[in-house]
Amino acid sequence: MAELDLTRDVVDLTADLVDIPSVSRDELEIADAVEHALRTLPQLRVDRDGNTIVARTDLGRDERVVLAGHLDTVPLTDPPNLPTKRVDGLLAGRGTTDMKGGVAVQLAVAQAITEPTRDVTFVFYDCEEIEEEFNGLRRIAADHPDWLAADFAVLLEPTNGGIEGGCKGTLRVDVATKGISAHSARPWNGHNAIHDAGEVLARLAAYEPETVNVDGLDYHEALNAVGISGGIAGNVIPDRCVVTVNYRFAPDKSAEEAVAHVRAIFSGYDVTLGDCAAGARPGLDTPAAASFVEALDLPVTAKEGWTDVARFSALGVPAVNFGPGDPNLAHTDDERCPEQQITDAFAALSRWLR
Amino acid sequence: MAELDLTRDVVDLTADLVDIPSVSRDELEIADAVEHALRTLPQLRVDRDGNTIVARTDLGRDERVVLAGHLDTVPLTDPPNLPTKRVDGLLAGRGTTDMKGGVAVQLAVAQAITEPTRDVTFVFYDCEEIEEEFNGLRRIAADHPDWLAADFAVLLEPTNGGIEGGCKGTLRVDVATKGISAHSARPWNGHNAIHDAGEVLARLAAYEPETVNVDGLDYHEALNAVGISGGIAGNVIPDRCVVTVNYRFAPDKSAEEAVAHVRAIFSGYDVTLGDCAAGARPGLDTPAAASFVEALDLPVTAKEGWTDVARFSALGVPAVNFGPGDPNLAHTDDERCPEQQITDAFAALSRWLR
Repeated sequence: MAELDLTRDVVDLTADLVDIPSVSRDELEIADAVEHALRTLPQLRVDRDGNTIVARTDLGRDERVVLAGHLDTVPLTDPPNLPTKRVDGLLAGRGTTDMKGGVAVQLAVAQAITEPTRDVTFVFYDCEEIEEEFNGLRRIAADHPDWLAADFAVLLEPTNGGIEGGCKGTLRVDVATKGISAHSARPWNGHNAIHDAGEVLARLAAYEPETVNVDGLDYHEALNAVGISGGIAGNVIPDRCVVTVNYRFAPDKSAEEAVAHVRAIFSGYDVTLGDCAAGARPGLDTPAAASFVEALDLPVTAKEGWTDVARFSALGVPAVNFGPGDPNLAHTDDERCPEQQITDAFAALSRWLR
Repeated sequence: MAELDLTRDVVDLTADLVDIPSVSRDELEIADAVEHALRTLPQLRVDRDGNTIVARTDLGRDERVVLAGHLDTVPLTDPPNLPTKRVDGLLAGRGTTDMKGGVAVQLAVAQAITEPTRDVTFVFYDCEEIEEEFNGLRRIAADHPDWLAADFAVLLEPTNGGIEGGCKGTLRVDVATKGISAHSARPWNGHNAIHDAGEVLARLAAYEPETVNVDGLDYHEALNAVGISGGIAGNVIPDRCVVTVNYRFAPDKSAEEAVAHVRAIFSGYDVTLGDCAAGARPGLDTPAAASFVEALDLPVTAKEGWTDVARFSALGVPAVNFGPGDPNLAHTDDERCPEQQITDAFAALSRWLR
């Protein structure tokens, strides 16, 4: 079994984690290593469910906060860019940005701060990068919501070292047009469903998305076609065309309100809901969040992309994203993380929790 | 080897041909049977290339005409609807309409009319129902154009017993829009190629196709999207969308003119030509065609769909479609042909050639 030494420098610890490959659904080795290392820390109670590990202090503090991160990565590059390389202050390799720098910071905090100023729950989960059904945090929220009970949560996804509050919600719908197929040499016997989709695209192009301020942060909504398909054969008038639309909505709206809004935009069309996930309020007006922002003294912006902070929000726990690494490098073959951001994130959380 | 008795009633002969399955690329057995039967007729010279057979009289007549048909069918139904069934004056089974009724008429004419009023070339070819590259008539036109030399050609594809002159041309182009991919939560970092395709669809919807009279027949042009595709993933702004457009054009236009017309319609977009085939003029003003129409005394309309008559037209041979069966039943599981149409087609061609 791989061994982790939590007393190592947090950048070295990041490299150690990256060098244990952990593509989604293949997290057993890294989960074992993380569990084993945490069980050496006497102040923590450690629980495990599959490859998700939850460890917490129980010091009777007035507040409890969560530090959460996922253990899995997207598939390795071909050939794998492992083991990690360190060049010019950058740590390079699959997972350095998304998000083993953040996981290393969690582990270093767990090791270094034995008596935090608020109780801390450390969550390490599996299968964040693949289909929702496999997501370890989703599973824990459903099966063990008490493990996640807290006043505030920090998800250590990469934010380039800044604080990104809450997140927008996201939903997808299929907007379909219906025609009548016919031979394309005799189109008057049919009705072209792709031509009808022009009006769907026109509504999308004409749509003016809102910017919504929630708890002090500006969320920029967006409505976009992310897919279109239609056609039967090169000599057939198509009887169906489907435009897949993604709506990213501010966290002031419930999922139901967002769905109703999209249905109204495409009234007159056959609209089928695909996936839908509400956003997360940043909750910056709560005492726990305020103390976090004050201790870190970093700029706070709205998180535009949906992240697992929404799972905490759904449990009534306000949440922010804060972690090392440029999110634009996540999933790229060129994934790399400034070592200084890893060190700084560890120092910032230490300031808050000491 | 299957044996064909060409002296049988033409409907019985159709059933005999249908009962020799001959899905495209599997025409050896039927081609052998046809060749063998034709070689028993002393007035014919028989040539063969692969599974295509060309037989002709050489009586020194002033005119030569072609009667052409393909031996192959689309795949059998599951389970196969063979052997043929005869119910209420209909002959049912794969190939009854497309086009063994026509092939039977060719063979019956070859057998019955030993001294036709004009020399006749009978063409039986393979692989009409699949990719162009395999088409036997295409191959003969390229390798043995002299076998097809004539003043006029009749293709016995199903026309419900009417005469359909010439055919429209057809071409396909891909009209592409180009964008910039980005995360769909931050679309301002990208540009949506699917939204841009709305203008392509708008031009299609606004297009007013022409009706063009050629040699006395009205050809109805048509411009239609037959396919559309775009999208990378459900959370990505798409960087490309492709609309596949099919233009059906009157036979007064060359292929080059038709391509130029489509490029002009979609000026400003990336237009890539797919396949392209010119149409066929009906040539009803030629003496050979006029005598055919006069002898048959049937209504003449323009052929809207592209057919292999265009291969004759490309060789300078005007051509029409005339054969038993409803073209709307071609390729359907319910394929069937009125027996009377087979008998009538044989009688009509006999009137012309006797």
